[in-house]
Amino acid sequence: MNRLDDAVMLLHHSGELIGTIAFAASGALMAVRRNLDVVGILLLAVATALGGGILRDVTIGNTPPNAFTDMRYLIAAVVTGMVIFSWRVPARLTRWPLEITDAVGLGMFAVVGTVVAYQWGLSAPGAALLGLMTAVGGGVIRDMLSGQVPSVLRPGEHLYAIPALACAAVVAILLRYTDYQAWMGLACAVIAISVRLASLKFGWHGPRPWYADDLPDEAA
Amino acid sequence: MNRLDDAVMLLHHSGELIGTIAFAASGALMAVRRNLDVVGILLLAVATALGGGILRDVTIGNTPPNAFTDMRYLIAAVVTGMVIFSWRVPARLTRWPLEITDAVGLGMFAVVGTVVAYQWGLSAPGAALLGLMTAVGGGVIRDMLSGQVPSVLRPGEHLYAIPALACAAVVAILLRYTDYQAWMGLACAVIAISVRLASLKFGWHGPRPWYADDLPDEAA
Amino acid sequence: MNRLDDAVMLLHHSGELIGTIAFAASGALMAVRRNLDVVGILLLAVATALGGGILRDVTIGNTPPNAFTDMRYLIAAVVTGMVIFSWRVPARLTRWPLEITDAVGLGMFAVVGTVVAYQWGLSAPGAALLGLMTAVGGGVIRDMLSGQVPSVLRPGEHLYAIPALACAAVVAILLRYTDYQAWMGLACAVIAISVRLASLKFGWHGPRPWYADDLPDEAA
Repeated sequence: MNRLDDAVMLLHHSGELIGTIAFAASGALMAVRRNLDVVGILLLAVATALGGGILRDVTIGNTPPNAFTDMRYLIAAVVTGMVIFSWRVPARLTRWPLEITDAVGLGMFAVVGTVVAYQWGLSAPGAALLGLMTAVGGGVIRDMLSGQVPSVLRPGEHLYAIPALACAAVVAILLRYTDYQAWMGLACAVIAISVRLASLKFGWHGPRPWYADDLPDEAA
Repeated sequence: MNRLDDAVMLLHHSGELIGTIAFAASGALMAVRRNLDVVGILLLAVATALGGGILRDVTIGNTPPNAFTDMRYLIAAVVTGMVIFSWRVPARLTRWPLEITDAVGLGMFAVVGTVVAYQWGLSAPGAALLGLMTAVGGGVIRDMLSGQVPSVLRPGEHLYAIPALACAAVVAILLRYTDYQAWMGLACAVIAISVRLASLKFGWHGPRPWYADDLPDEAA
Repeated sequence: MNRLDDAVMLLHHSGELIGTIAFAASGALMAVRRNLDVVGILLLAVATALGGGILRDVTIGNTPPNAFTDMRYLIAAVVTGMVIFSWRVPARLTRWPLEITDAVGLGMFAVVGTVVAYQWGLSAPGAALLGLMTAVGGGVIRDMLSGQVPSVLRPGEHLYAIPALACAAVVAILLRYTDYQAWMGLACAVIAISVRLASLKFGWHGPRPWYADDLPDEAA
C-alpha cells in the first residue's frame, strides 16, 4: 500500500482538491444555466464534485468514502458553489466556463483515481479502468441529475473519454513499471486536459461505423 | 456502536418502516400516473422504498444492505404497491398523495439515515450528509427511473433538500452533544415533513442568483 | 461458500461470459442506433455488460468487483463492441438484434447473480432479489445512459422483470432445497429468455390497475 512517496501523496491530495473544485464549478454552472436556486446550485456542485470519488471508493471497497470522512472536499465544493452563486463569471474572461472546469476535473480525477485504485491493490488494467470511471463519473452524475444524456455519450461529442482513458492507462503503466513521481501524473493530467479542450476547439471526433449513414433513423 | 438505547432502536426500526411504506406509496403512485402495469408499479415501489437505504448501506460499507437481509422492508414495499394497485386512492381524501407520501419518507429517512451512519462510526457532519443522501436517494431513483429530472433539482422547485438537511444536521448535533432520545428524532422528522409540505402549500423557494434573469436561455 | 461443485462453477463462469457478451452487444447496438462514434459504442458496450455485475458485487460487498480484477469480462465486452462497430449485423439474419441480445443477458445474469449472491451467504429471498437486480441492472444502466426510460419501466412494456424474477426465484429455491446442478440453472435461463421473447412476439402484458383508464393524463 505504501510504495509511493510523500510527494506523490501531496500531489494526490492537491490534485483531488483541484479536481473537486473544478467539478464543483462545472456542476454549479450547469445549475445556474438550468435556472436552479441556491439549494440546487449547491447540491449539483457537491454531487458533481464528490460523485466520482464516492463511486471510486464504493467500488474498491474503501467505505465510508473519503468524501464522508474528510470534510475538506465537501467544504471546497460548497465554497465553490457559493462563489458561483454570488459572483457572475464574466463571459469574456473565460469563454467556456463549463467546458474548461469539466476538462480540468476530468484530467485530475483520471490521475488521482488511477493512483488511489492502484494503491488499494488493483492490477494496473483495473486501476486504469477505475481512473476512467472516477474521471467521467462526476460529469455523468451531473448530466443525468440534470435530465441530459451524459456528454460522454452524446452523438457528435468530441473526444472526452479517450484522453481520460489514455491518461489513466499511462499513469497505470508508470505505476507498474517505473518509479512513479508526482510530476508524471501532473504531466499526464495536463496533456489530457489539453487534448480534451483542443478536441472542442478543433472539432476532433472519433470514427463512426462505416455503415452509420445507411441506418434508418429508428431512434431519436 | 451501542451507545443508543433500545427505545431509539425501536423508533429507528419503526421510522425506517414508515419511511419505507411512504416511499413505496410514492413510487407506486408515480407508476400509476405513468400508466405502468402491475410489475412496473411493484418495481417502482420497491426501488423507491429500498433505494435510499441501499445507497446508504453500500456507502457506509454495511454490505449486504439491510434491504437484502431483513425481508420486512421488501414485504412492506410490495404490500404497499399491491394496495395502490388494487385500491384507488380517493382524490378528496388526500389532495396530493404523491407529495405527502414523498414528504413523510423524506423526513423519516433523514433521521434514520443519520442515526444509522452515526452509529456506524461516521463523524457528525458525515452522518448528516449521509442522512441527506438517504432521504433524497429514494426520490431521486424514482424520478430518474421515470425519465424525469429529480424533483430536488427542478427549476422552481419548493424547499425539499433544505428541510431534510436541516433535520439531519440537528439529529447529528443531538447525537454528538446530547443524550439522544427517540422522541427527538421523531420531532425533527415531523418538523421537516411540515416544512416541506408548507413550502408546497405557500410556495416557498430558495433564492436564485441575482444575475439569473440576465442569463440567456442557452439550455432548456 | 463452497457447497457448489465445479460443474456449477464452470457454468457460472460460462454463463457470466455469455451474458456479458450479450449485454455488450445490446449496448453497442443501442449506441449504433443513437449514432455514437467508436468511443461511445465501446463505452456503452462495457457499461451495459459490466454494470449489472458491478452493481451486484458492490451491493454484496465483494469489492473490488470481479469486473475490475478479472479482465476477461472487460476484454469480451470490448471485442464484442469492436465486432458490432466493424460488422453490420444483417437485418434479415436477426430481426430484433437488440431485443434478443438483451433477453439472453437478462436470463444469464438472473441465474448467475442469484448463484453468486447465495454463495456469498445471502438468504434465498435476498439472493433472488439480487439476481433480479443483476439481470435488469445492465439494461437499466444502458437505457439511462442513453437518455431513455429503462425498458423495464416503460408503459406498455412486455414481460421483462417477471421472467427474470421467476428465474431467480426458482434458482434460489433449487439452491436452498435441492442438490443444485449446473443444468438446472441453464434450463431456468433458457425458459426465462424464451418467455421474454415470446412476450415480445405475442404481446403479453401484465395487468394494469382497474381504474387506470379513468385517470386524467396528468403526467406524460
